[in-house]
Amino acid sequence: MSMNEPFSRRLTKAILAKQSVLVTGLDPNIANLPPDLCSRWFHQGGETFEAAAECILEFNKGLIEVLSDVVVAVKPQLAFYECLGAPGMSALSQTISYAKQHSLLVIIDGKRNDIGSSMVGYADAYLGTTQVGGTRLAAFPADALTVNPYLGSDSITPLVESAQLSGTGVFVLVKTSNPSGSEIQNLAVVDKKVYEIVGEHCHRWGLASRDSDGYSAVGAVVGATYPREAAALRKIMPHAYFLVPGFGAQGAGPADVVASFNADGLGAVVNSSRDIIFAFAKQGGSYQDAARGAAIHSRDIINKALLEGGKRAW
Amino acid sequence: MSMNEPFSRRLTKAILAKQSVLVTGLDPNIANLPPDLCSRWFHQGGETFEAAAECILEFNKGLIEVLSDVVVAVKPQLAFYECLGAPGMSALSQTISYAKQHSLLVIIDGKRNDIGSSMVGYADAYLGTTQVGGTRLAAFPADALTVNPYLGSDSITPLVESAQLSGTGVFVLVKTSNPSGSEIQNLAVVDKKVYEIVGEHCHRWGLASRDSDGYSAVGAVVGATYPREAAALRKIMPHAYFLVPGFGAQGAGPADVVASFNADGLGAVVNSSRDIIFAFAKQGGSYQDAARGAAIHSRDIINKALLEGGKRAW
Repeated sequence: MSMNEPFSRRLTKAILAKQSVLVTGLDPNIANLPPDLCSRWFHQGGETFEAAAECILEFNKGLIEVLSDVVVAVKPQLAFYECLGAPGMSALSQTISYAKQHSLLVIIDGKRNDIGSSMVGYADAYLGTTQVGGTRLAAFPADALTVNPYLGSDSITPLVESAQLSGTGVFVLVKTSNPSGSEIQNLAVVDKKVYEIVGEHCHRWGLASRDSDGYSAVGAVVGATYPREAAALRKIMPHAYFLVPGFGAQGAGPADVVASFNADGLGAVVNSSRDIIFAFAKQGGSYQDAARGAAIHSRDIINKALLEGGKRAW
Repeated sequence: MSMNEPFSRRLTKAILAKQSVLVTGLDPNIANLPPDLCSRWFHQGGETFEAAAECILEFNKGLIEVLSDVVVAVKPQLAFYECLGAPGMSALSQTISYAKQHSLLVIIDGKRNDIGSSMVGYADAYLGTTQVGGTRLAAFPADALTVNPYLGSDSITPLVESAQLSGTGVFVLVKTSNPSGSEIQNLAVVDKKVYEIVGEHCHRWGLASRDSDGYSAVGAVVGATYPREAAALRKIMPHAYFLVPGFGAQGAGPADVVASFNADGLGAVVNSSRDIIFAFAKQGGSYQDAARGAAIHSRDIINKALLEGGKRAW
């Protein structure tokens, strides 16, 4: 996969090849990792950030090995790396490499937002390369990044331009899966809600990057916990890939994700984090076996719901 | 200064001691650093992230040394560290230590936002410590963090709880300084704007942490480029410290910041980044001398505007 092929096209190819729309979060909250794994690293390296970073890297690698044919992408949530300092960020960088070696797309869940040169800095960090003297170097070269829209167009467009150049994508938070998201996102502006207006902006931000397959470099985060809102947003943003959180641990079921898809069975991927990566805590056994089992189950019940909803053309 | 003394009280003390409300951004965009400084490090370490990180660390230390009696806080913008990979984050950690050694408060400008355990991860990373086995370790221990409100209360409250426990603070983006911020922030909801509603939430989020001096752990980012809006927000959030960007390079002058202050001459700090740290590019001379000169000038014209606006009680 060339980095110059558009992200949406690479995502569609992965969905068709793997017959899966599942994404798994790599949220290695150190408190929830298999205790024997942590003990081993702490015994070796002491209770240090370096040992903790080795620990989450081993955990992530183990997950990537058993999930690479079941999920289309992994989605590292940055807080769990940043809270381990620079060693944690080094584990992130190695996790990205390992995921790419296993033909997985990487969506960085950083919900970044800023203006001007700062947003370009984030684009360099996660979607491109940084100019260092006469060289360009890649810090955390992912395939897509989640971003927050509160700062408006002049915060988003520098990122979209970088994404187009590098064949990467962005997912803009539109309607998030958590209950309090409504406090801002559902405010009524005449006959529209704030999230619908954000959706209209996303549609506009993505138009110039629309690929021949119909999808653009600007996707949207749309929570599975709000299927009615998702249906409305699907119409507002026909060219956007949706990243759908809220499935599983957060309460949404397979039927709730169907509204986020287009009639072609594409246009959305569904994330599940804790239910997959920490499945061992409920089911026992090795964390790898438990994660693979949970991922296959999630993939299958989502595919079944898509079929029943008349949305599984592939 | 104990970390258990509330952030707002520590900020007020610094303002009174230094007779300054100035904050400077530490935004070490490698492209804008003094060329001889970069050449030296690239000559030594090659064009690597490690060399670039050493370079920005030396730059930051040089700034901290000449600004510590002129500004109350430094505000590292995270994009410029993240785009240099794990070495960049290591430079951030060392910058924070160095600033604290020089009695400067550190406001991390990360505009973070997420829900539940992820937001706790950010709190651990920047406002507290991370549990690693039986030990708690500090990753990037700052005094305050900027956050984005688009996800609502359940995203903010875990952070505010951490802030209260550790004597740190948060600054919520309310009305940002950039032109496109209005696309979302100025949407009209019946007779209010979105930013006013966000301001009302901030007020509520901060109430429980109100200190005896009247200020709370929940501050607000309010752009100097919108003085009328700032005046309205000042009334909505009487207990919030405002972090005021937009002064200098972004176009706002000293008279524009006055509305963000309370009658006691407190309740706001004014940030200036490029005009100070890259002053050498316009004025020549050493970057340290140029930065110190620019900071003293900014401090003085702001103090004069506060005096003329009847807001300089100290």
